[in-house]
Amino acid sequence: MKPIIDTITAPSAEIRAAAQARIDSLAKPLGSLGRLESIAAQVAAISGTITPAPRRKCTIVMSADHGIVEEGIACAPQEVTAIQTINMLKNLTGICVLSNANGADVRVVDIGIKPNISHPGLIARKVRPGTANFAKEAAMERHEAEQAVLTGIQVVQELAHEGYNLIGTGEMGIGNTSCSSAIFMALTGASADEAVGKGGGITDEALARKKQVISAALALHQPDPADPLDVLSKVGGLDVAGMVGCFLGAAHSKVPVVIDGFISAAAALVACRLNPLVREYLIPSHRSAEPGYVRIMAELQLEPLLHLDMRLGEGTGCPLAFGIVDAALSMLSTMATFDEAMINRDYLVDIRP
Amino acid sequence: MKPIIDTITAPSAEIRAAAQARIDSLAKPLGSLGRLESIAAQVAAISGTITPAPRRKCTIVMSADHGIVEEGIACAPQEVTAIQTINMLKNLTGICVLSNANGADVRVVDIGIKPNISHPGLIARKVRPGTANFAKEAAMERHEAEQAVLTGIQVVQELAHEGYNLIGTGEMGIGNTSCSSAIFMALTGASADEAVGKGGGITDEALARKKQVISAALALHQPDPADPLDVLSKVGGLDVAGMVGCFLGAAHSKVPVVIDGFISAAAALVACRLNPLVREYLIPSHRSAEPGYVRIMAELQLEPLLHLDMRLGEGTGCPLAFGIVDAALSMLSTMATFDEAMINRDYLVDIRP
Repeated sequence: MKPIIDTITAPSAEIRAAAQARIDSLAKPLGSLGRLESIAAQVAAISGTITPAPRRKCTIVMSADHGIVEEGIACAPQEVTAIQTINMLKNLTGICVLSNANGADVRVVDIGIKPNISHPGLIARKVRPGTANFAKEAAMERHEAEQAVLTGIQVVQELAHEGYNLIGTGEMGIGNTSCSSAIFMALTGASADEAVGKGGGITDEALARKKQVISAALALHQPDPADPLDVLSKVGGLDVAGMVGCFLGAAHSKVPVVIDGFISAAAALVACRLNPLVREYLIPSHRSAEPGYVRIMAELQLEPLLHLDMRLGEGTGCPLAFGIVDAALSMLSTMATFDEAMINRDYLVDIRP
Repeated sequence: MKPIIDTITAPSAEIRAAAQARIDSLAKPLGSLGRLESIAAQVAAISGTITPAPRRKCTIVMSADHGIVEEGIACAPQEVTAIQTINMLKNLTGICVLSNANGADVRVVDIGIKPNISHPGLIARKVRPGTANFAKEAAMERHEAEQAVLTGIQVVQELAHEGYNLIGTGEMGIGNTSCSSAIFMALTGASADEAVGKGGGITDEALARKKQVISAALALHQPDPADPLDVLSKVGGLDVAGMVGCFLGAAHSKVPVVIDGFISAAAALVACRLNPLVREYLIPSHRSAEPGYVRIMAELQLEPLLHLDMRLGEGTGCPLAFGIVDAALSMLSTMATFDEAMINRDYLVDIRP
């Protein structure tokens, strides 16, 4: 894992500048396509070419179970993880539908589902059959957290090898907002009120219990905020650890990678703590309704593109963001320049901040 | 015009409720797809069917010139209106590129370009060759404003007849943020500081002049806020009036219609003042960087879907929003229900506001 993390390099500043120069030559007021411009320049810089080809897009869904559900703080029974994972492989769930609508693929990884399941499409990389209940003991061994991160790195490397060049990060794991909140609190010192929400949907009483359980677990384990692997192994999840690997692997393979909602953002935060250069490869998608999301994005100095009040998970924000990236790259590659548009650009006033 | 405005009816409340019931039967936490759910239910209600077919999408670009540019407050020379209109017909501009990327079409209407231009694709409906300078005289006659509105209605009716069932509203008209600010101020009493921005890009000095010119023009003409046609004719634009007609025509033809940025929002506000039922047909797209935009949206009680800091105009937010609508309708039509997903839904907790 460490050799990968240590060999991540920054996207090309030269290509980024050249792409922005091309964008500034297009027939429109300077900066007037806003974040489409910055996304296009970012993808160019990552890809190493001023006019990147259309993307081959795939959202990776990391599926795993969480021992913490024993505490009665999740929105659904634990068996839903396995059932929905199978449904995902049958192309039936939210991420499948939105991916189909956006010309994107979905890959589903069993990185730690409790029961054994099988399906021809499943990427079977179970590290262990779910985490332990971190209210009582460490969620997993440190070497298991490392193995889960490494799995995420490898899955991205395999997809990049297949030709995918825009990756989304999703998850299926009943209980995984709890470990995401715990990770966020451990890394930043955020309070339970700031970090803990109702996930897919729980009662006010369950929310109060969820905050208590997570706060007590952090007091019990005292994870080291300077050691992201310690945090992941003590209060993390196998799905989240796998997603951390997806972010690291994407940065290492020079592929832009989209953050979904709260759980994905927590994983992105961990990856950036392991190597801050990862941030240069991140593309946000939607503003999750989960309260910790905006705080993690503030930490990462990123702003979501889409305000849709979504809180489904599965990676559902990613295919929607893919559409924005596609549009940004079309602009970069096919919009007419001032010369082609036969417009003298001497009048331009630059009001960019 | 009045017979059209008076015969707009509300979308079907029954179909909306039935579509929401179907959405609530899909295998996901209740409400967890947020605004994808409300958009899907809205389009269903407008279309009169619980599972609307995939959309045929088109953005209408109303092109016109503005006499107010004589005051030196626009971001580009007046001839750019005609040049960019031709470039649009050649599939070269921002709206073309983003529409191509989203499977959408563009139709360009000459509703009042100053020079005569011709192109096989142009919808030639010139009401007059640009408005007068409303700093000195009324922008147009009342009957001309009515004719421009009627033109917008007719263009939408023609597109609906061709089979388009999702319409976007765009414009090309150097100087048209000025008349949009004036319209917004006249209708709501907003101040110049609240309503006037730098449009495509002008200097601080030009911005101060723009505010002065618009405020003085409103003091001169005293348009009646209770009479939207009086406002349109005194300080409006032919492009904006045409877009007012697009919103009215879409509501009358029962077609959902997307708001682009500030100019489009000002036109939507006028349409809603002519018949408040129009609001039920509106779908917002992106949060324009122009300062008046958020205030008009607050008036309309709408929130933008996309936060992209765009300020290009042309309708460029529309094809991006079309992608969100497509995704919403895919969800409604193809996502698995709890029964199909073989999940007992007894655990669901409804946390919707």
